[in-house]
Amino acid sequence: MTDAMTRRTNERILLAHGGGGLLMKELVELIVGRLGASGAGPLQDSATLPVDRGRVAFTTDSFVTSPLFFPGGDIGRLAVCGTVNDLAMSGAKPAWLSLSFILEEGFLFEDLERVLDSIAAAAREADVAIVTGDTKVVERGKADGLFINTSGVGIVPPGVELSSAKARPGDAVLLNGPVGAHGLAILSRREGIDFGSELESDCAPLSLLTVPLLERFTTVRAMRDATRGGLASILNEIAADSGVCLRLDERTIPVPEAVRRACELMGYDPLHIANEGKFVAVVGREEADGALAFMRSHPLGAAAAIVGEVTERPAGTVVLRTLFGGERVVDVPYGDILPRIC
Amino acid sequence: MTDAMTRRTNERILLAHGGGGLLMKELVELIVGRLGASGAGPLQDSATLPVDRGRVAFTTDSFVTSPLFFPGGDIGRLAVCGTVNDLAMSGAKPAWLSLSFILEEGFLFEDLERVLDSIAAAAREADVAIVTGDTKVVERGKADGLFINTSGVGIVPPGVELSSAKARPGDAVLLNGPVGAHGLAILSRREGIDFGSELESDCAPLSLLTVPLLERFTTVRAMRDATRGGLASILNEIAADSGVCLRLDERTIPVPEAVRRACELMGYDPLHIANEGKFVAVVGREEADGALAFMRSHPLGAAAAIVGEVTERPAGTVVLRTLFGGERVVDVPYGDILPRIC
Repeated sequence: MTDAMTRRTNERILLAHGGGGLLMKELVELIVGRLGASGAGPLQDSATLPVDRGRVAFTTDSFVTSPLFFPGGDIGRLAVCGTVNDLAMSGAKPAWLSLSFILEEGFLFEDLERVLDSIAAAAREADVAIVTGDTKVVERGKADGLFINTSGVGIVPPGVELSSAKARPGDAVLLNGPVGAHGLAILSRREGIDFGSELESDCAPLSLLTVPLLERFTTVRAMRDATRGGLASILNEIAADSGVCLRLDERTIPVPEAVRRACELMGYDPLHIANEGKFVAVVGREEADGALAFMRSHPLGAAAAIVGEVTERPAGTVVLRTLFGGERVVDVPYGDILPRIC
Repeated sequence: MTDAMTRRTNERILLAHGGGGLLMKELVELIVGRLGASGAGPLQDSATLPVDRGRVAFTTDSFVTSPLFFPGGDIGRLAVCGTVNDLAMSGAKPAWLSLSFILEEGFLFEDLERVLDSIAAAAREADVAIVTGDTKVVERGKADGLFINTSGVGIVPPGVELSSAKARPGDAVLLNGPVGAHGLAILSRREGIDFGSELESDCAPLSLLTVPLLERFTTVRAMRDATRGGLASILNEIAADSGVCLRLDERTIPVPEAVRRACELMGYDPLHIANEGKFVAVVGREEADGALAFMRSHPLGAAAAIVGEVTERPAGTVVLRTLFGGERVVDVPYGDILPRIC
């Protein structure tokens, strides 16, 4: 049976597409073809890759986003950007991604192809190669359409040694742009809530900004992207790991008006909402203005801001000076604010 | 709320355990603690790793095994061995694994801990470090208890260049032991079929055998482990990629009596059944006897055999000389023989 024949008789994923036989071969060929890869099978069981110099960075993320398609992105773009961003935050230049699908029996090929196109486009944008992969199929009702795992390998240039334990009193806290849109865009689509505005995911490959940033500035101590748990979680981690206080100024934190309104409506704190294209860099005071100017010169940092500074005490805390001049401790959310936003 | 308090009030996974807040932190701490890791957080978002020399091998696999626990193993041991084996087959010494969980809301902590213990034990056995991880939780009914993705990085020693396209006429085909037990053990447990014998998964980290094998023998052309699609699939891939014929002798292929009987009962071909601790090595004729003796001296190759040889024609096929002296073409299964055996 030819590929075309199989597809004509069935436009949905079968259990047999995960079974290691000819049908799985067809599925893998569809995936490899759709990713625009050429030559001798880029999706090998195990790819071997040359490393010239520097250390290797290695990361993994599974994506269970619901819905699969949302304003500003989809699970495919998210799966590429999420793993690229984890590598970027470690100071690495992302190089290779793996791609593993768990498909539910009955999933539409049409949707799979749409996700694959999005993955291919995001990988091109981020300048990473997808070099190995895997597919599994489970029975109808045993998954939710499509889950994706991407793992990533990157190269950390010699001399780059970022750590959330390296923030020191006097350092500046930089943020590359407005927070809160990603989580609310997904919530809006999933729950059918209209926040009366165009909220779009900010999902983007941050390495395009972080790699040149690290080439130019040598006092970047730590970088973290504000995903699940939002800005509040990563700032608290840096404060705890470094044994310092991060003091923020609410006036300087960019929160889009649509995010502010939606959060008021739902009772959320914008600092708890997940993003997929926002990160914090803790930078030595002497380079803070230069780093800010560089970020603002880049499309992914056009609305960057210095949102706070590092002080000694109270160690391990994040303190926010509010719009009204008061102070409050920024806490970590207890559980999930918005499940399945990544 | 303390860790102990949370656990007392709830012995099951909550959606909130995936939300990026304090509960997710508790879950990650449980995982890290249970894996027996020490020091500064081995499960970082992205681990950075030193590479001295050689090329890097990189692979990924998602595991959706049903049931999670089966004779001879469980999804945790499988997740470690499966990825270790993919690296081993590329000629690499496995070094680092990532570990990503997709948990269904309501999954028992008790079962998670059992799986974690099994992962820790298998990682020790295989001498690999779990260096980065991720957890996601989806609503009840949106997954099947637990899915695991492991990705792996290994180092390919200088000079090792395996490829399924390198088999040449005259080479010998070595198999490290009896086939068919893994798939049937899982089927037996899942469907409650008693095959009247103790079928146990052969799940094992093959690098323990392949790394020293490659140090001693320089004419190993290709190695492949016989997972989904069984021995038949990997032999056909080697035959196709190398443009050669693999001629097997059925008398030399070790098939346990219990596997033979179960296959007869169910109408399966033992060569189509998945394994998780069996591999084929194509070796130059001049080293075949030495490589066989070495494999037999190792616990993972005690019942190894030379099961066939490489000939020129018919190119791209696998031909089996049967027990009765006839010949048949060994085909690739069309779809799934046994779904969710890995």
